[in-house]
Amino acid sequence: MPPHLPQPIAFQGEPGAYSEGALLAFFGEDAQTLPCESFDEAFAAVERGDAGAAILPIENTLGGSIHRNYDLMLRHEFHIVGELNAPIHHQLLALPGVTLEEITTVWSHPQALAQCEFTLDRLGVAREPTYDTAGSAKMVREQGRRDVAAIASRRAAEVYDLAILQENVEDEPNNLTRFVVLAREPVSVPEGVPAKCSLVFSLHNEPGALFKAMAVFALRNLDLTKLESRPLRGRKWEYFFYLDVAASLDEQPLQRALSHLSELTTFQRVLGSYPRHDEMRDA
Amino acid sequence: MPPHLPQPIAFQGEPGAYSEGALLAFFGEDAQTLPCESFDEAFAAVERGDAGAAILPIENTLGGSIHRNYDLMLRHEFHIVGELNAPIHHQLLALPGVTLEEITTVWSHPQALAQCEFTLDRLGVAREPTYDTAGSAKMVREQGRRDVAAIASRRAAEVYDLAILQENVEDEPNNLTRFVVLAREPVSVPEGVPAKCSLVFSLHNEPGALFKAMAVFALRNLDLTKLESRPLRGRKWEYFFYLDVAASLDEQPLQRALSHLSELTTFQRVLGSYPRHDEMRDA
Repeated sequence: MPPHLPQPIAFQGEPGAYSEGALLAFFGEDAQTLPCESFDEAFAAVERGDAGAAILPIENTLGGSIHRNYDLMLRHEFHIVGELNAPIHHQLLALPGVTLEEITTVWSHPQALAQCEFTLDRLGVAREPTYDTAGSAKMVREQGRRDVAAIASRRAAEVYDLAILQENVEDEPNNLTRFVVLAREPVSVPEGVPAKCSLVFSLHNEPGALFKAMAVFALRNLDLTKLESRPLRGRKWEYFFYLDVAASLDEQPLQRALSHLSELTTFQRVLGSYPRHDEMRDA
Repeated sequence: MPPHLPQPIAFQGEPGAYSEGALLAFFGEDAQTLPCESFDEAFAAVERGDAGAAILPIENTLGGSIHRNYDLMLRHEFHIVGELNAPIHHQLLALPGVTLEEITTVWSHPQALAQCEFTLDRLGVAREPTYDTAGSAKMVREQGRRDVAAIASRRAAEVYDLAILQENVEDEPNNLTRFVVLAREPVSVPEGVPAKCSLVFSLHNEPGALFKAMAVFALRNLDLTKLESRPLRGRKWEYFFYLDVAASLDEQPLQRALSHLSELTTFQRVLGSYPRHDEMRDA
């Protein structure tokens, strides 16, 4: 049950992008969407009020955390108001009527090409990197190329009226992306709804500092669902820590833990407290 | 002081790649190199004995952990025998004699293009994604294009006899990549040399499990330099943890900590114990 946010909702990519699929899975098929060229542009759209929220990929089982979006969250004062875990399945798309035998070249983002290596090797086709998965599908349609296929989402096939030549061509079927929804105002999670709270902090540089920071949560039986250390740019032995805890900011144990944590941190910020999303929906 | 390993040493990329620069910084300018098309191919070269070791990027301050290489480490039985932290500086390269005014297009890997956005915006040039930074420099040379520049390393300029049109064109100057050196046999770190040990493990799925795992190290005053949780593919609430600890496997406190840790883990593996590299060398 997504929060009520003014539409449209911003996402990064062309229509048919995996992020657009996540947007519609989260907000419903009727949601108004605002395609943005870059993550920066999606944040700017929310800042200017052109979008009521943005949905952005934050980590992926194959690629890890998307640090660019963590950086942009630190630069803007938005709040995470929701999350979505979505399986990513790649499709081989071509103009309707084209057969596999006609395909000599495949276009897609280098990361998507790399994730479909076995299939591409078997087909014996040339690979040409592009900026974008959905953008590749768009180019196949616009240029009317019968010798080129694109690797993109099932939704891109609909958007650009392409046929799926081969389904789920990814080498690793368990490719999940976690998306977060960012808005200008925080939400409060209704009592009884499983919640999650995302934090970023840095610690005094002393032995055992991270252990003490974790004790703050463990001593209050608060469960962590993510913990990642990341070297602070340009400061060699200092780190940011990204932490997700399975609790709502409205719960007293978490409030106390955060107050306790502030005794140990040189910087700390709550990125958001929001309903936890356990099942998965296709993007 | 790099360990004595049979040459050549494998790296991923074309000659002139950032990884090749890291290789020469680590093993010395005279080292024999073996360029490999993919990370998988670099691992395979060590497996077959075609290379005595491989040097591979494992994390980057802008992009985070390179999970593909962690995955490959789990699949192979190699050992980390060394590490190198290298700043990454991007150069704008063109055929000698070409001026900035002649350039209409820039080729590079999408990630490098994204890291030089401000410069490219200012130049007002078209961006064309390619597979590889050094590969782009090679193409500019091979095709003799006077209207195209490549974004690649300083070393790529030498290898393909290109001129540096503009230096250090990256938007974010503090872009560091950590490389690890992998070999078939482990090394032992001489006493008195600062060491690091890298582990991967998964825990029984119960509250406080990670806190207990960290206590194993904190109770023995062992300092952690990296900790990252990563969802296990296809198993929704289970995680791999990547952990680096500032100690050698030859030290008793670490041996005891690992034995203690095994009481808590469902899986654990030492990826290597090796001399710690604190300064930085240009790649």
